[in-house]
Amino acid sequence: MDPKLGRMTLKEWVAIESDSVQPVPRFRQELFRMMATAADTLQHLGAHVASVDMGSQQLPDGQSLPIPPVILAELGSDPTKGTVCFYGHLDVQPADRGDGWLTDPYVLTEVDGKLYGRGATDNKGPVLAWINAVSAFRALEQDLPVNIKFIIEGMEEAGSVALEELVEKEKDRFFSGVDYIVISDNLWISQRKPAITYGTRGNSYFTVEVKCRDQDFHSGTFGGILHEPMADLVALLGSLVDSSGHILVPGIYDEVAPLTEEEINTYEAIHLDLEEYKNSSRVEKFLFNTKEEILMHLWRYPSLSIHGIEGAFDEPGAKTVIPGRVIGKFSIRLVPHMNVSVVEKQVTRHLEDVFSKRNSSNKMAVSMTLGLHPWIANINDTQYLAAKRAIRTVFGTEPDMIRDGSTIPIAKMFQEIVQKSVVLIPLGGVDDGEHSQNEKINRWNYIEGTKLFAAFFLEMAQLH
Amino acid sequence: MDPKLGRMTLKEWVAIESDSVQPVPRFRQELFRMMATAADTLQHLGAHVASVDMGSQQLPDGQSLPIPPVILAELGSDPTKGTVCFYGHLDVQPADRGDGWLTDPYVLTEVDGKLYGRGATDNKGPVLAWINAVSAFRALEQDLPVNIKFIIEGMEEAGSVALEELVEKEKDRFFSGVDYIVISDNLWISQRKPAITYGTRGNSYFTVEVKCRDQDFHSGTFGGILHEPMADLVALLGSLVDSSGHILVPGIYDEVAPLTEEEINTYEAIHLDLEEYKNSSRVEKFLFNTKEEILMHLWRYPSLSIHGIEGAFDEPGAKTVIPGRVIGKFSIRLVPHMNVSVVEKQVTRHLEDVFSKRNSSNKMAVSMTLGLHPWIANINDTQYLAAKRAIRTVFGTEPDMIRDGSTIPIAKMFQEIVQKSVVLIPLGGVDDGEHSQNEKINRWNYIEGTKLFAAFFLEMAQLH
Repeated sequence: MDPKLGRMTLKEWVAIESDSVQPVPRFRQELFRMMATAADTLQHLGAHVASVDMGSQQLPDGQSLPIPPVILAELGSDPTKGTVCFYGHLDVQPADRGDGWLTDPYVLTEVDGKLYGRGATDNKGPVLAWINAVSAFRALEQDLPVNIKFIIEGMEEAGSVALEELVEKEKDRFFSGVDYIVISDNLWISQRKPAITYGTRGNSYFTVEVKCRDQDFHSGTFGGILHEPMADLVALLGSLVDSSGHILVPGIYDEVAPLTEEEINTYEAIHLDLEEYKNSSRVEKFLFNTKEEILMHLWRYPSLSIHGIEGAFDEPGAKTVIPGRVIGKFSIRLVPHMNVSVVEKQVTRHLEDVFSKRNSSNKMAVSMTLGLHPWIANINDTQYLAAKRAIRTVFGTEPDMIRDGSTIPIAKMFQEIVQKSVVLIPLGGVDDGEHSQNEKINRWNYIEGTKLFAAFFLEMAQLH
Repeated sequence: MDPKLGRMTLKEWVAIESDSVQPVPRFRQELFRMMATAADTLQHLGAHVASVDMGSQQLPDGQSLPIPPVILAELGSDPTKGTVCFYGHLDVQPADRGDGWLTDPYVLTEVDGKLYGRGATDNKGPVLAWINAVSAFRALEQDLPVNIKFIIEGMEEAGSVALEELVEKEKDRFFSGVDYIVISDNLWISQRKPAITYGTRGNSYFTVEVKCRDQDFHSGTFGGILHEPMADLVALLGSLVDSSGHILVPGIYDEVAPLTEEEINTYEAIHLDLEEYKNSSRVEKFLFNTKEEILMHLWRYPSLSIHGIEGAFDEPGAKTVIPGRVIGKFSIRLVPHMNVSVVEKQVTRHLEDVFSKRNSSNKMAVSMTLGLHPWIANINDTQYLAAKRAIRTVFGTEPDMIRDGSTIPIAKMFQEIVQKSVVLIPLGGVDDGEHSQNEKINRWNYIEGTKLFAAFFLEMAQLH
C-alpha cells in the first residue's frame, strides 16, 4: 500500500464542499461529486458498489433539491464469517473562512500533527480509516477476517433525509446477512484515551417565527408604536432555559429515565480530568464542578441551545432596522425515555402560552423541523467485547465506556429496523471541533484509528 | 430643460450602490463614484464646486477605509439676496435583492407611478428635486431669487462620519454668508398631504457582546454544561423593553420633556387617518389606538428597537451550533431633553446589573457605537413661513406641522454650530419605505417636490 494513500485521499475528500445544511444547488452538486468519488474509491478496493438514487427533497419554500445517492457496498460473502456493516456520512456542516477559520476549511492543512479541514473528523476521516484498514488486508494479500458492508450517505447533517425509508426497504435484502453495525461518527471524551459509545442523545430542532409583515421597518419611522417582532422573539427565546441551564418548558423532564446507583458508578469509573477538559475546550468555567455532573448533563439529561435568528440584522455595522419577520432557532437534546412528539407538544404549548401573555398583534408559528430519537445499547454484545480487545491491542488501555451528547439518529434507527447490535467506535479526540471552526483530526488518531479497525476485524473473526 | 433629465438622472444615481453601512471597500468605491457624479452634475449647473477630502476612518476591527468627499457648492453670491444652504446625502442603507425586494434595488423601476429603488426617497430623489428646481430657473434663463449653497455628504447612514468637524471648520468660511438651512431627508405623515418638520429624535446605537470563546461549539458535544452566550444575550435583550413598548432601563424617562396642554393641541390639529396609516404601513394593529398617542410615541417619547444578532446562526436551514461569541444590536430613539451620555451610562449599568444576576462565566461588553442628539426648532422663523406659503401655492393646502421619529443629526448640528434656522421640507409620502425593502418615491411627489422647491426660492426672496 502506498503509505501516503490515506492522507492524500482525505485531502481530496475534504476539498469537496459537501455541505448538506445549506439547501442550495451548488452544495448539492458537490455532494453528488463526493458520493461519486467515494463509490469510485470503494470500487477500486474490489467492492461491489451500488449508488442508490434517493429522489428529491421538497423544501419549506417550495424549492425542490435532489438528494445525493446512498452508497451500499459489499466486500466478501463467506457464510462462515461474521458480517460487519459500517455506516458513515460524507456530508459536512457549513464552513465559511470568514467565521474564524485560520486555514481554508476545504483545504486539509497539517499544523503540528493536526489535520485541519471541514469534515476531517466528522465524518470523512473515520470513513477513510475504515477503508484504509480494508486496504491494508488487500495490500498484504490477506483474506478479510469478516465480510464487510458499507452504507454511506450524504445527508446526515441535514437529518439523514430519506435514509430510514431506504434501510426499511433494504431490511431483508442488503441488511439480511448483516450481524453487526459499526458507526464511527463521534469523539472520545479525552484527547488521548480511546472510548466505546453505547448511547446517544436525540434532538428536536425548532423554529419559532414571529411576523408583523414581510417588509422590514425603519426604526425612526415606526419605533415606539409597533409590537416589534424581535421583542416578541427575544422574550420567547428567553423563556426557554434559565441561567443554570435548566429547561423551563413545563413537563420536559417528566420522562427522563430515573438515575440509579449503578449508573452513577459508571460515571465515576470514567477518567476525566476536568482541568484538561476545560483547557482543551477553551472554556473558563462550566455550569457544573464535578466530573459526574458534567457527564450526566452531557449524556443523560436533556439540554436546550439557542442557535440564532434568521431575518434580523446579522452583519457588522449599525443598521437601524426593525425586522418585520424573524425566525428563532433552538433545539433540545433528548435522552432516554423522552418522546419526540411529546416534546413537540410541550414546546409548542409553552411558546403559545408565553406569546399569548404578551398580547402582541404579531403572528407566531412554531415548527419542529427535525425530531430524532435518543439511543441506548447493550454493552455485553459480541462486538463491544471485540472492540474492547482491539483497543487493548492497539492502544494498550481499557476504553472509556461512554455515551454521546450528540445525535446519531441512525444508531437508533439501525437498532429498531435491522434489529442487530450497534456500536460506536470513535477515532477523534475531544478537541477535534466537529461542527465548529477549525475542525481537525490528529494525524495520530487517523493512523491509530486505521490500525484499530484492522484489529477489530481480527477480534470479530475470533469472537463471532 | 430636457423634461426627462430629472428622471433619467435619478435612475443613474440609484444605479450607484452607495451603501455606507457595510464597511467594505467595494461600497466605498461606489460612494466615491456617487460623489464624483453629483459634483459633475452641479458643475454642469454652473455651480462653484469643491469636493472636500475627508480622510479615512478607523474601524473597530483595525481596518482603515477612506471617507467619501463632502461636496460644498455655491450658486450666486448677490449680497442683496438671502442665502439658502441645502443639505442632502447620497449614501444609502444596505439593500439585497434576496431580502424581499420585488425589483432590483439598484435599478430604478416605475410601477403604477411609483419609482422603486434604494435611495429613491432617502435621499437621492429629494437632492435631485432641489437640483431640478435650480435647473428650471437656469433653463428659463431667470436669475435665481436666492443665493444657493449645497452641502452634500456620503456618510449619513453611517452617522455622518467627520461631517461635524468639517462644518465646524467651515463655520466662518463656507457657512459665513448662509442665512437659512434646508434639509429634505424625511417623509410626510400621510400619502398626499405635505408637511414641514420642526423636530427630530436622536439615536443611541448599542452593541452588547457576550463571549465564551471565539470558536463556536457543537450543541451535542457541549449542550448542557455551558453558560451559552445566546442564552445570556437573549436574557439581556429581553430585559430592555416590555410588550407594551415601555423601556425598562431605570431612569431612561427622567429627562423626557414634560407634556404641556399646548403641545397636545398641536397633535390634535394634525390630520392622520389611523386606518389609512395602518393600511399603508401594512400593520394590523399598533401599540396605541389614538392619533395623539401614536404621534407622541413616534415624536416625543423614546423608543427601543432590537435590530439583530451578529455571530449566531442566521441562515436558512438547521445548524446545531452553540455560537461562542455573539453581539446583540439595539438602539434607543432619543427625544428632548434626553442626553446621549446619560443614556449611555444608564443602559450600560442596567445591562451590567442584569448580567451579574445571571452568574454567567462569559464576558460581556457594552458599547455605544453611535450617539446622536435630538433636535427641535422655532417654527416662527422666516423660512418656515416661506415654506408654508410655497406649499399653499403648489399643493393648495396647509402643511402638517410635524416632528420626525427618525434621526437627522445634522439638523441639531447645523443649529448648534452655524446658529441659523434649520427647516426640514420632506417630499416623500409616508409609505415610501425608506431603509426597508422596496423603497420608492412617487413620480408625483418627485415632480411636485421640484415645483415646491422652486416656489420656496421665490417666497424666500419676498420674505427675506
